[in-house]
Amino acid sequence: MKIAVLGTGMVGKALADRLAELGHEVSVGTRDVAATMASTEPDRRGNPPFAVWATDHPQVRLATFAEAAADAEVIVNATSGNVSIAALEAAGEDSLAGKVLLDISNPLDGSRGFPPTLFVKDTDSLGEQIQAAFPALKVVKALNTMTASLMVDPRQLADGQHSVFVAGNDPEAKRTVTALLSSFGHTDVIDLGDISSARGAEMYLPLWLRLVGALNTPIFNIKVVR
Amino acid sequence: MKIAVLGTGMVGKALADRLAELGHEVSVGTRDVAATMASTEPDRRGNPPFAVWATDHPQVRLATFAEAAADAEVIVNATSGNVSIAALEAAGEDSLAGKVLLDISNPLDGSRGFPPTLFVKDTDSLGEQIQAAFPALKVVKALNTMTASLMVDPRQLADGQHSVFVAGNDPEAKRTVTALLSSFGHTDVIDLGDISSARGAEMYLPLWLRLVGALNTPIFNIKVVR
Repeated sequence: MKIAVLGTGMVGKALADRLAELGHEVSVGTRDVAATMASTEPDRRGNPPFAVWATDHPQVRLATFAEAAADAEVIVNATSGNVSIAALEAAGEDSLAGKVLLDISNPLDGSRGFPPTLFVKDTDSLGEQIQAAFPALKVVKALNTMTASLMVDPRQLADGQHSVFVAGNDPEAKRTVTALLSSFGHTDVIDLGDISSARGAEMYLPLWLRLVGALNTPIFNIKVVR
Repeated sequence: MKIAVLGTGMVGKALADRLAELGHEVSVGTRDVAATMASTEPDRRGNPPFAVWATDHPQVRLATFAEAAADAEVIVNATSGNVSIAALEAAGEDSLAGKVLLDISNPLDGSRGFPPTLFVKDTDSLGEQIQAAFPALKVVKALNTMTASLMVDPRQLADGQHSVFVAGNDPEAKRTVTALLSSFGHTDVIDLGDISSARGAEMYLPLWLRLVGALNTPIFNIKVVR
């Protein structure tokens, strides 16, 4: 499939790398291509700048949000939650209409220090805000409940015996996303319901953040035992 | 141990039953003993009224919140979140001082229909509000992340291979609660940190509620796979 991954951070790179490895035609979308390629700073986790990653992934095209989205069949929102709606606006409503959006974003607000708080929650969610802003987009919230490396390689941990959630209004879009998740190695995909159930997946983040501290690693995930 | 269980609902009855079975001297606290015993209505899940349960549990004493708390060594808060602070006020600050509170409450607000929302979250939690209201009480949030029958009998599901959290400021109080949880059959007790980490445990509830719907049963729990 032609897949656009919006976002050049850790999540975007992990998704683009894995999707390309699985044979998809992947473009990565960014706000400003020249600025992204010119950056020489490592990211806040010390990973090399995007240009280094791009050299190692010649099959992945870097493009503007609009160019990446234009001919994609599936779009992955791997941007920070606080800029997700702006990134999708830059992609352009016409390029989004009718397409599946795998929305990985979390509404984290780090402006008050650690742990971050959520800028939308409880009676609404970022997934719902994106769906409301782009009614013709088929938003499926998924993968936001684990660290990037587990999103794309769940079998590195307990042979994939842990759970991932999907939430969205369109059953066919959820099937498309579920197939992608299965291709990554996920074995337990739980359909939480319509896009309002993204509230549950996003409100898990405060527990996830505390668990990172308690376990001293982000390499964990929850299995829904039933 | 002498243990007071505050609350006569499903959670209170489950805890009192199990603690008595394990040999503890258990009293159940309620706002109005006569009213609790006089009620002939089944609860909202169709369980028989408290008086029927009391007849089956003659070793458990029903008392006012104050009487139950007075000589207890450990207190269990099994009241609804919206009345927890009032119940503890009725128990009396002097009876609480220096004691361990196993706080199972969740800040659920069902006034807007299903799913309930949370009346405190994100930058605060009910666990923290209770700790702030009763500074001499040693509050440990635990067990609020699963249904009552699993709280007290985790081995009914996957031989107990799932997780439970503790959050609180006092290490000795967390050890006391952890020992109780182990006596119930819990095998994976994860210390999330100080009482502010109750935010994580309480904000998991929206996901828990969606999972009840998705799985069509409350008999499930999460295992933190790491």
